Amino acid sequence: MPDARQFIEIQGTIALRRGTLADATIAYETWGQLNIAKDNAVLLFTGLSPSAHAASSNSDPSSGWWEDMIGPEKPIDTTRYFVVCVNSLGSCFGSTGPASIDPTTMEPYRLTFPVLCLEDVAFAGQQVVERLGIEQLHAVVGPSMGGMTALAHTLMFPGVTRQLVSISSATHSLPFSVALRSLQREMIRKDPLWQGGKYDIDVPPSQGMQLARKLGMITYRSAQEWTTRFGRERATDDTHPEDGDPFGITFEVESYLEAHAKKFVGAFDANCYLYLSRAMDLFDTADHGGSIASAFQRLVLDRVLVIGVQSDFLFPAHQQEELASAFEAKNIPTEYVLLSSIQGHDSFLVDMDRFRPVIAEFF
Amino acid sequence: MPDARQFIEIQGTIALRRGTLADATIAYETWGQLNIAKDNAVLLFTGLSPSAHAASSNSDPSSGWWEDMIGPEKPIDTTRYFVVCVNSLGSCFGSTGPASIDPTTMEPYRLTFPVLCLEDVAFAGQQVVERLGIEQLHAVVGPSMGGMTALAHTLMFPGVTRQLVSISSATHSLPFSVALRSLQREMIRKDPLWQGGKYDIDVPPSQGMQLARKLGMITYRSAQEWTTRFGRERATDDTHPEDGDPFGITFEVESYLEAHAKKFVGAFDANCYLYLSRAMDLFDTADHGGSIASAFQRLVLDRVLVIGVQSDFLFPAHQQEELASAFEAKNIPTEYVLLSSIQGHDSFLVDMDRFRPVIAEFF
Repeated sequence: MPDARQFIEIQGTIALRRGTLADATIAYETWGQLNIAKDNAVLLFTGLSPSAHAASSNSDPSSGWWEDMIGPEKPIDTTRYFVVCVNSLGSCFGSTGPASIDPTTMEPYRLTFPVLCLEDVAFAGQQVVERLGIEQLHAVVGPSMGGMTALAHTLMFPGVTRQLVSISSATHSLPFSVALRSLQREMIRKDPLWQGGKYDIDVPPSQGMQLARKLGMITYRSAQEWTTRFGRERATDDTHPEDGDPFGITFEVESYLEAHAKKFVGAFDANCYLYLSRAMDLFDTADHGGSIASAFQRLVLDRVLVIGVQSDFLFPAHQQEELASAFEAKNIPTEYVLLSSIQGHDSFLVDMDRFRPVIAEFF
Repeated sequence: MPDARQFIEIQGTIALRRGTLADATIAYETWGQLNIAKDNAVLLFTGLSPSAHAASSNSDPSSGWWEDMIGPEKPIDTTRYFVVCVNSLGSCFGSTGPASIDPTTMEPYRLTFPVLCLEDVAFAGQQVVERLGIEQLHAVVGPSMGGMTALAHTLMFPGVTRQLVSISSATHSLPFSVALRSLQREMIRKDPLWQGGKYDIDVPPSQGMQLARKLGMITYRSAQEWTTRFGRERATDDTHPEDGDPFGITFEVESYLEAHAKKFVGAFDANCYLYLSRAMDLFDTADHGGSIASAFQRLVLDRVLVIGVQSDFLFPAHQQEELASAFEAKNIPTEYVLLSSIQGHDSFLVDMDRFRPVIAEFF
């Protein structure tokens, strides 16, 4: 298997926001060259489930999750910028997380992993930046959870980056999205195979993961898109009531969800999912000073781009406006773009025709 | 236990839309008096989960699910109207459904119950109307699933009612709401205790039902309401990570969902829920003539009221407009009201200050 990942080891015990962690590893990938002034680096944080493989490279020619955005002559142009994408601390694609071996017990952490916060993910990303000898980033970029992590990074390390790109993100999670994620976690935890987090790696809580993924897919997209795509089309793999299950797949939309949920299971560790999901709930800019305004007092930024999507109901338009207004209130030059994509929260992954020009212009 | 229910028995085998059913019972409640002309009756169909107990009465003084709407001097004034509320065929509050005993086997129907359609629920309601000696209804009223059933009734029995009140309903289910309901059903079906529908009545698939109810509650309300009600308030019954479960209840919104989901389980039979939920997915006005317009050709109505709610994302505003426009295209006098309630799909149950005047004015 081609692998473009690089790793740093953080020796010794580090203090997380709500605990400590020994001997953590952080995986990352890079594209382009760091210039001599070391000031052309772009740090990219990911959403909940992607790995650091944001784009293809010579070391790993497979397509990345943001393939259309990163590369030579692409919006984040790797002939000009040195792009670093970090696999989140707590994830399962090379960075230390609940599925990793605890060096003190030689057993997987599972639920003994400390409560994870996005500030910890941002801290781990900064360790990579420092190890690469970079003192000044050209920009920090993050979509969805990655946008929250990027914001945490700018709050924790003021001045390290002078530019921030926040995509379909927010200053905090609303109770509506907390409720949805809480339910996703419960679906996994209620799967008998989860076993309090002590499942066999080869016998994961697949049913719970599939249910959680389906709810994710429903909430990442928009009702409008599905009406356009599926309407009331019947599935070709319709399981007929005559087959004994009157509640099987009837509509194409059900067939679509089933196929995609099955793909996800096996690719992502259940405990890692639980930790990262909860980290999103816990994130609140106001924790950095009592209110968003006072937290933002510490920001040192020359320029911000806030992108949102009209049909996103997990990180809705009013949260994008709130974020942009908070930067403006601090007199930071802020560009705010609300796109009319119909693909909801996931638009940054699929509606490239709308996203590319906005990102390209910023860079 | 006080009980205001009355029952009709439908002797012999009746043809349903997709099957047959022997010796069905239909439960209903009534309020007010049928006048001598027998033309003051209002037929009320319910949403998915309520019983026929829409309001209190001498026989059952407990509050009904639409207590503020039905009674003397209330918007549907029982000093003027004879109100009949029917427990849906397929439900579990007195009407025959999957939890009832099949007279041919003396065992509960469970999944041998025929595929249920809302047309069958409408048919059962009409049997009650006929048994009461009513040839001409003053109005048929239905919220949510009940609105679809009411529409089915007017399509199947043209002229029996001259007035229709549709509340937060639609001509058909969109793939977005089909996907959500499909996922709710899967949560129940994946609960090991469901056992292919053959669960012990005392050991129901509670976990699956609780998960399904939580998803229901999330989708019946609106993000805006929850931001107002809960914000980022922490739960007083916060289960701390120190207690060994880092994914327990942290936020008040999670505590709220947990408390309400527990109440629901035990009150509703899982198989009945599955059948009625699927019936909503299957409903499509276009089945009555190839398109909505041709289906509506058969309508004989003097007056229609279509009420929708801006924050409802299960039966969104554009579906309310579509419904109202279809009546108008048939030259039926139509009043269309889109309310600005923030309680989403459930507004008709809780935002009485907005709903009462609209219903009162119509009646």
